[in-house]
Amino acid sequence: MTRPTDADHDLAATSRRRFLRDGAMIGGAVVAGGFGASEARAADADNLPPNVPEWMKTPGDPMGSQLYGTPSPFEKDVVKNIPKNLKQYLSASGRTPLQDLDGIITPNGLFYERHHGGVPTIDPAQHRLMLHGLVDRPLIFTMEDLRRFPSESHIYFLECSGNPAYTKPFGKTASDLVGLLSCAEWTGVSLKLVLQEAGLQPGAKWVVAEGADAAALTRSIPIEKCLDDAMLVYSQNGERLRPQQGYPVRLLLPGFEGNMNVKWLRRLHVTAEPAYSREETSKYTDLMPDGTAREFTFYMETKSIITRPSGGQRLTTQGFHEITGIAWSGHGKIKRVDVSVDDGKSWQEAQLQEPILTRALTRFRLPWHWDGQPTVIQSRAIDETGYVQPTLAELLGVRGENSFYHNNAIWPWRIASDGEVTNAAA
Amino acid sequence: MTRPTDADHDLAATSRRRFLRDGAMIGGAVVAGGFGASEARAADADNLPPNVPEWMKTPGDPMGSQLYGTPSPFEKDVVKNIPKNLKQYLSASGRTPLQDLDGIITPNGLFYERHHGGVPTIDPAQHRLMLHGLVDRPLIFTMEDLRRFPSESHIYFLECSGNPAYTKPFGKTASDLVGLLSCAEWTGVSLKLVLQEAGLQPGAKWVVAEGADAAALTRSIPIEKCLDDAMLVYSQNGERLRPQQGYPVRLLLPGFEGNMNVKWLRRLHVTAEPAYSREETSKYTDLMPDGTAREFTFYMETKSIITRPSGGQRLTTQGFHEITGIAWSGHGKIKRVDVSVDDGKSWQEAQLQEPILTRALTRFRLPWHWDGQPTVIQSRAIDETGYVQPTLAELLGVRGENSFYHNNAIWPWRIASDGEVTNAAA
Repeated sequence: MTRPTDADHDLAATSRRRFLRDGAMIGGAVVAGGFGASEARAADADNLPPNVPEWMKTPGDPMGSQLYGTPSPFEKDVVKNIPKNLKQYLSASGRTPLQDLDGIITPNGLFYERHHGGVPTIDPAQHRLMLHGLVDRPLIFTMEDLRRFPSESHIYFLECSGNPAYTKPFGKTASDLVGLLSCAEWTGVSLKLVLQEAGLQPGAKWVVAEGADAAALTRSIPIEKCLDDAMLVYSQNGERLRPQQGYPVRLLLPGFEGNMNVKWLRRLHVTAEPAYSREETSKYTDLMPDGTAREFTFYMETKSIITRPSGGQRLTTQGFHEITGIAWSGHGKIKRVDVSVDDGKSWQEAQLQEPILTRALTRFRLPWHWDGQPTVIQSRAIDETGYVQPTLAELLGVRGENSFYHNNAIWPWRIASDGEVTNAAA
Repeated sequence: MTRPTDADHDLAATSRRRFLRDGAMIGGAVVAGGFGASEARAADADNLPPNVPEWMKTPGDPMGSQLYGTPSPFEKDVVKNIPKNLKQYLSASGRTPLQDLDGIITPNGLFYERHHGGVPTIDPAQHRLMLHGLVDRPLIFTMEDLRRFPSESHIYFLECSGNPAYTKPFGKTASDLVGLLSCAEWTGVSLKLVLQEAGLQPGAKWVVAEGADAAALTRSIPIEKCLDDAMLVYSQNGERLRPQQGYPVRLLLPGFEGNMNVKWLRRLHVTAEPAYSREETSKYTDLMPDGTAREFTFYMETKSIITRPSGGQRLTTQGFHEITGIAWSGHGKIKRVDVSVDDGKSWQEAQLQEPILTRALTRFRLPWHWDGQPTVIQSRAIDETGYVQPTLAELLGVRGENSFYHNNAIWPWRIASDGEVTNAAA
């Protein structure tokens, strides 16, 4: 910021002192070295108030120029991140640009997508959901039927289990690494209530869910989850699901790997055994060093990542910077996030933004004074079960290098002396 | 829903019994008469699984067909509600379609808008915010400067104070009535922190905020609010503010009338007295029966509305229906919402969806069995201060009929014997 009349160095000196003095009021955070102030910069006389910028001289866009609003044209580069050179066009992924986002809610337009047969355009009036198998009364629901059930709303994260893979290159940005992750307020019906409506028979142990896409994506869900917090979801951040997220209805299994949260849901088959579908045998399993495969690894483990500063960004000045990122756990609430700014030699506890919700993203922050020296920063999440996010080396030590999914390792960012931020593990 | 093999009346009977038996499990709600089941309907054999719908026969839209996603084409009518026949095109309002939304988060594309000089297209690199007046160090901030301050995120509602006006016609839908209301997760900087950076001088009692739109919209904010929970906000539901909501930076005064939350913020002038601007004298004041005007009525009072079923909708069948709506208070958290289904003769306590957040929307729900008789339904909110939402008659008794703003009356919906829902006070 600039003091309009004084020399820059005067402002830098006074405002830095001021920010130091007031530092204790920022959420009670304690930082070795304290805060620095924002950098003073030369005034740009042409653009300062009370000079009148161009956009104040004529009326702006009239009401209703956007019946459904879109972002500013100056934000045109904040879009889904779609990996280049995909071999399987229809098995592609569109990632959330996490490094450009704040808070915990992902706007619907930037919610990650991952699909196996393209995005179907489904007429909700024609769509049906069948519930059959080990039930007393097989039932078929229209969307209107589902809307008439008692509803509930919850903020939950959703994450692909290959986020990131263990394989190099790991990518450059937070989005490259863990952009198959988003968080929204979901509204729908308790799956338990719908199953009770049909009446479960003895021996009902699994529910096989099938999507109405060209892949007919199929996953087996343990009955315990179906009778716990599973939902049939039709709305996302207030409005109806986006086509990419399963319009008009999807399964939502809080904390379970994304692929199980079957989109465009058309069938729930209650069974005694899992289906052993493609997506739970040849895919979404973890090949261990002894040649066996981990199967039915439902829960997304505790995880975190610093989103600012992160790969692809640049610190333009020494002094105060806020380190911020997101943490999450499929097992419940985040209890603590530690941040290291000295390549893992020491750790400080970050502030967590309330409300801290179960199986939702939690935003963390640490005030930091960068001294201009090269370093490595990273975050480590602990959830309410006490589980601590591991390093990549620890994870590879247990899982070996054949594994592809379920990488929840700590991710370090390297900061160069010129402020450039890069992936320290790439 | 339909049991594929049995006659409809069998299913209706059995599933109604079932739903009744399990009713106690739905959030512990108790309803006189209990739940009814969803209506059984004839199977439409052409569209039932395992018959394969058209959209499963060929791959859907490929990845990246929307780098920034949009809603399903089947939701094309869920857009902002813009009143017809506006005399002042540039003083118009675009309302959130509350009756089509679920949960508490308003998606950014449907966030309400209200502006007085059109929507400016502001280059964030050129935008400046000046802080001057009764401060030790007048300062000018770039957006980059503001981004370097410690940040915070909160879910708050925002509401225009003329929502609805006291004047007829009141409109047909929930959006017509109170659609100048939305709720989002906001991220930005504590205004207190920014004011401390400049250093407040003795005698600083007001902050006059000016927008960078063609109206240079100007409002005076009491210093107590500025040093409490006021924010300079740059993000909304994760992404940067939409142009209609003040891109690149706006004032956010949780619980205060929308007009004070100055958008496109370019100037904060710290003063001893209010500016007595147009928007706080000739507008946004309440003319009382004795000829005096209520001025500086900052807080939006406790309020609620049933959004489903609501005006313009239709109950297609007797039996179980969930009544749901939203409640909010500028003074803090919602403590309780009562719902009447018998034209105000008796009231039942609705379920509130957690988390209940201060100065945010709170979703309420009441299971209801409609017997097919004409009736009137309505909701009444109570906030944590104990304030009870009044009836329109009570409000008019105090305020008289010259008032225009700050109508927080209970709003009743009439349900006809054919299920049609209309505004009972229109």
